Amino acid sequence: MPVFRHLLSLEGMGRPQIEAFFTRAAEFEAGGPHKAPLAGRLVANLFFEPSTRTRSSFEAAAKALGADVLNWTVAGSSASKGETLLDTVRNIAALGPFAIIIRHQASGAAAFAAANVPCSVINAGDGRHEHPSQGLLDTYTLWRRWKTFQNRRVLVVGDVLHSRVVRSNLHALKALGAQVALCGPRSLVHDGWAALGAQVDTDLDRSLEGVDAVMVLRVQRERMADAFFASEREYHQRWGLSAERAARLKPDAVVMHPGPVNRGVEIAPEVADGPRSLILEQVRNGVFVRMAILESVK
Amino acid sequence: MPVFRHLLSLEGMGRPQIEAFFTRAAEFEAGGPHKAPLAGRLVANLFFEPSTRTRSSFEAAAKALGADVLNWTVAGSSASKGETLLDTVRNIAALGPFAIIIRHQASGAAAFAAANVPCSVINAGDGRHEHPSQGLLDTYTLWRRWKTFQNRRVLVVGDVLHSRVVRSNLHALKALGAQVALCGPRSLVHDGWAALGAQVDTDLDRSLEGVDAVMVLRVQRERMADAFFASEREYHQRWGLSAERAARLKPDAVVMHPGPVNRGVEIAPEVADGPRSLILEQVRNGVFVRMAILESVK
Amino acid sequence: MPVFRHLLSLEGMGRPQIEAFFTRAAEFEAGGPHKAPLAGRLVANLFFEPSTRTRSSFEAAAKALGADVLNWTVAGSSASKGETLLDTVRNIAALGPFAIIIRHQASGAAAFAAANVPCSVINAGDGRHEHPSQGLLDTYTLWRRWKTFQNRRVLVVGDVLHSRVVRSNLHALKALGAQVALCGPRSLVHDGWAALGAQVDTDLDRSLEGVDAVMVLRVQRERMADAFFASEREYHQRWGLSAERAARLKPDAVVMHPGPVNRGVEIAPEVADGPRSLILEQVRNGVFVRMAILESVK
Repeated sequence: MPVFRHLLSLEGMGRPQIEAFFTRAAEFEAGGPHKAPLAGRLVANLFFEPSTRTRSSFEAAAKALGADVLNWTVAGSSASKGETLLDTVRNIAALGPFAIIIRHQASGAAAFAAANVPCSVINAGDGRHEHPSQGLLDTYTLWRRWKTFQNRRVLVVGDVLHSRVVRSNLHALKALGAQVALCGPRSLVHDGWAALGAQVDTDLDRSLEGVDAVMVLRVQRERMADAFFASEREYHQRWGLSAERAARLKPDAVVMHPGPVNRGVEIAPEVADGPRSLILEQVRNGVFVRMAILESVK
Repeated sequence: MPVFRHLLSLEGMGRPQIEAFFTRAAEFEAGGPHKAPLAGRLVANLFFEPSTRTRSSFEAAAKALGADVLNWTVAGSSASKGETLLDTVRNIAALGPFAIIIRHQASGAAAFAAANVPCSVINAGDGRHEHPSQGLLDTYTLWRRWKTFQNRRVLVVGDVLHSRVVRSNLHALKALGAQVALCGPRSLVHDGWAALGAQVDTDLDRSLEGVDAVMVLRVQRERMADAFFASEREYHQRWGLSAERAARLKPDAVVMHPGPVNRGVEIAPEVADGPRSLILEQVRNGVFVRMAILESVK
Repeated sequence: MPVFRHLLSLEGMGRPQIEAFFTRAAEFEAGGPHKAPLAGRLVANLFFEPSTRTRSSFEAAAKALGADVLNWTVAGSSASKGETLLDTVRNIAALGPFAIIIRHQASGAAAFAAANVPCSVINAGDGRHEHPSQGLLDTYTLWRRWKTFQNRRVLVVGDVLHSRVVRSNLHALKALGAQVALCGPRSLVHDGWAALGAQVDTDLDRSLEGVDAVMVLRVQRERMADAFFASEREYHQRWGLSAERAARLKPDAVVMHPGPVNRGVEIAPEVADGPRSLILEQVRNGVFVRMAILESVK
C-alpha cells in the first residue's frame, strides 16, 4: 500500500495509486482477522459544514481500525467565538491526532490546513473543489463490478457547477481510463469542463444513450432560490432520472447517487430503490475505502 | 440468554423471556471479568428526538461491552436536509452496525426501520407506542427487590395518554404477574386502558391504598398549553406525590420516576430524594439492562 | 503519584503535589509502552458552557489511557428540560463513570457536584472561580523550560476580574515559588488581588519590565458591551501585547495564552505566532497534564 502524507485531491493521482486503494479496500471488505493497526492512535474529525454521512463513515472506518475519534463541529465550538481556521487546525493538531479529517466551505481549505500542521490531513470536502474519498468510493463501487474502466462510459447528471464530487470523480475516472460525460442545465454545466476531458451536453435523453453508469447529483434546493433552475418540477422533467429514462438504459447499466437523495427531484424513487441502484452499496463501500485511506496516511 | 432479532416492544413477551433479561442484567451488575463480547462491533444511536439520558445509557452499555458507538442526531444531519426516515435508516445500516438504536416521534417508527434494514433494531421510544428498555429497567429494579411480582400492586400516576413508558411497563408488569392500576386526570387517563388489564381511577389518594410501588410519570409542560390540565399547582395538589401522600404508603412501598423529574410538580423533592425513592437506582440499572439487551441482539 | 478524590481547585495545593503532576505528565509526554490503565472505565464530560478545546483535550487524554468517554452537553439534553444541576450530575454519576469532568457557569458548581456524587469530579471551569487543569498545564509548560520557579517573574495581562484561569494559575505559581504580577484596565484588575500575593498595576509597559513569562488573557468581547473597556482598539493600544512590546522583553522571556486568541486585540498576530510563543505547546501539554489528572483520580 503506498503511503500518502495527505489526501487532498485526486487530481494527478495515477491509476496504480487509485487501484492500490481499491485493492486494500477490497481486502477490508473481505474481512479477515481484526488487527486494529490504529489502536491507541487518534483521528480528529473537523467539520465546518454539517455532515453526518461522511463524518460517520470516517468515524466507522477509524474505529474499525482501532483508532479513537475526536469529533469537532462548528456548533458550540471556539470557531463560533471567531477563531481563525488556522488557529483552529493548529490547536486540533496540537492535541496529537495522526490525521485531521476536514470539511470546510472554502475551496483550498484542506490544502491550507495541510501546509500548517505536522499531521496528515484528509480532505472531506472543500468548497467546490474536491471530495476525494467520495471520488474513490464511487469509482471503487464501479471497479468491483467492472474491474476495468476501458470502454466504459460514465455520465454525471446535475449541478456540476457547485459539485466537489464531480471534480474528484472526473479525475479518478479519467485516470482509470473511462469516458466521462456531463449533463445538466446550462446554468450549472458549462463548456469549460471539456478542458478536463469530459463531454458536455444539456440534453439528458441524448446523454443517456450507451452509458454504463449514471451518477446523479443531489439538487441543492437553495440553488433554486438562486435562480439556477426554475422549479423542482421542471428540473425533474428535464434532468431527473425517471423510471422511463432508466428503462431505456443498457441492461447492465448502473445508477449512483452520493446522497442524500431528493426523491422525485433528481431521481425517481423507483429508480433509487430499483435493481440498477448502487446507492446503498456506495455507502457500504465508503467505510472500506476510508479504512484504506486512513491506513495509507497513518 | 435468548437471542432476539430486534427489540421493538414488550407486548407479547413472556415472563421467561423477561426474566432472562433480568438474570443477565444481574450478572453484569455483579461485575466479573471483562470480556468485551462486542469488541470490534459497531452500534448506531439514531435519535430523532432530543435525549441524553437514554442515549448515554445505551452508549455506556455498548462501550462496557467493548462496542464502538456512532451517535447520529437530527440536528445538523441529513435528516434536516429533508431525507426520509427510510433513507436515513438504510444509510446508517449500510455503515455496518450490528444494531441501530432508534428514537423517533412516530409510533411504529422502530418497527418500520426493522422491516427495512439487515441489522438489529432496538426501539428507544417511538411516539406514544413503547419504550421497551425503560419497561425492562423499571421492572428489573422491582424484580431485584421482590424477586416475584405475585400479589404485588403497582400504580402508575400521571400522563398515561402520551406515555410510551406506561405501555411498555404495563405489558411487562402483567406478564410478570403484577396487578397494575393507572391514575391521572381524566383528560390523560381514559377507560380504554382497562382493556389492557389495568384498573383506572382519577382519585390519587384512593389509588395509593395498598400499593407496593408508585411509578410517577413526568409532566410534559407543553401539555398544559394544550389544556390537558389547568396548572402545575393544581396538578401537584391532585396528582402530585407529596410528602404527605408518600407517608401514607405501606412501609416498604417504593417510588419510581423515569426522569427527568419536575420537582414540585408531579413529585415533591423530599419524596424524589427520600428513602422510598429508586430513581437513581433505575438509572444505574438501566446500563446493566441495556447491556443484556445489546448482547441479546448481537 | 498521589491519589486525589477530586480536582476542584489548586488553592492550597502544595509544591510537591503540583510537581508530582508535572513528573507524571512528563512521563506521558516521553511516551513509552501503552498500558491503557483506564481500559474498560468510563469518563463523563459534562459541559454546561460551550467548549471544544478543554473538552477535546480531556477526551484525548482519557482515550489515550484507554477509557471510554461520554459527552454530555447542554444543547439537546435534559438540562434544557429544566432539570436541576443536582439531578443532572446524580443521573450521570448513576451511569457509572469513575470521574465526571464538569464545566458550569456557577462558581462552586464543581464542589457542589463533588459533594453529591459517589465518583470523582474534575473541575473544568466553574464561573469565575477556578480552572485547575489549565493552571497545571500552564505551569507545566513553564516548568519544562525552567525546572525551578525561584526568581521567576510571571505577568498576567487582561481581564483578571472574570478569569478563572488567573485564579488557578496564581495559586500554582505562588506555591511553586514564582513572583506574580497582574495588569489590566482598572475596571478588570482591582487591588484585592494583592491579598493573594500578586503585584497589581494598570500600566502594561511598566509591568513588562523584567518578566520571564507573560500570560495574556482572552478578551471576552461581550465585556465591551458591559462597558468594562471602551473599544478593542483602545484595549489593544493600552493592554495588547504588540510586537513592539514583545521586542522589549528579556531575550528568553516567553508568551502564553489559554486560547482561543483574538488576534490584534489582546495579542498581535506576530507575537502569537512568534518565537516567544508557547501557545500551541500549552495545548499539546494539556493532553499530558490531563492524563496525569485522570490517572490521579482513578
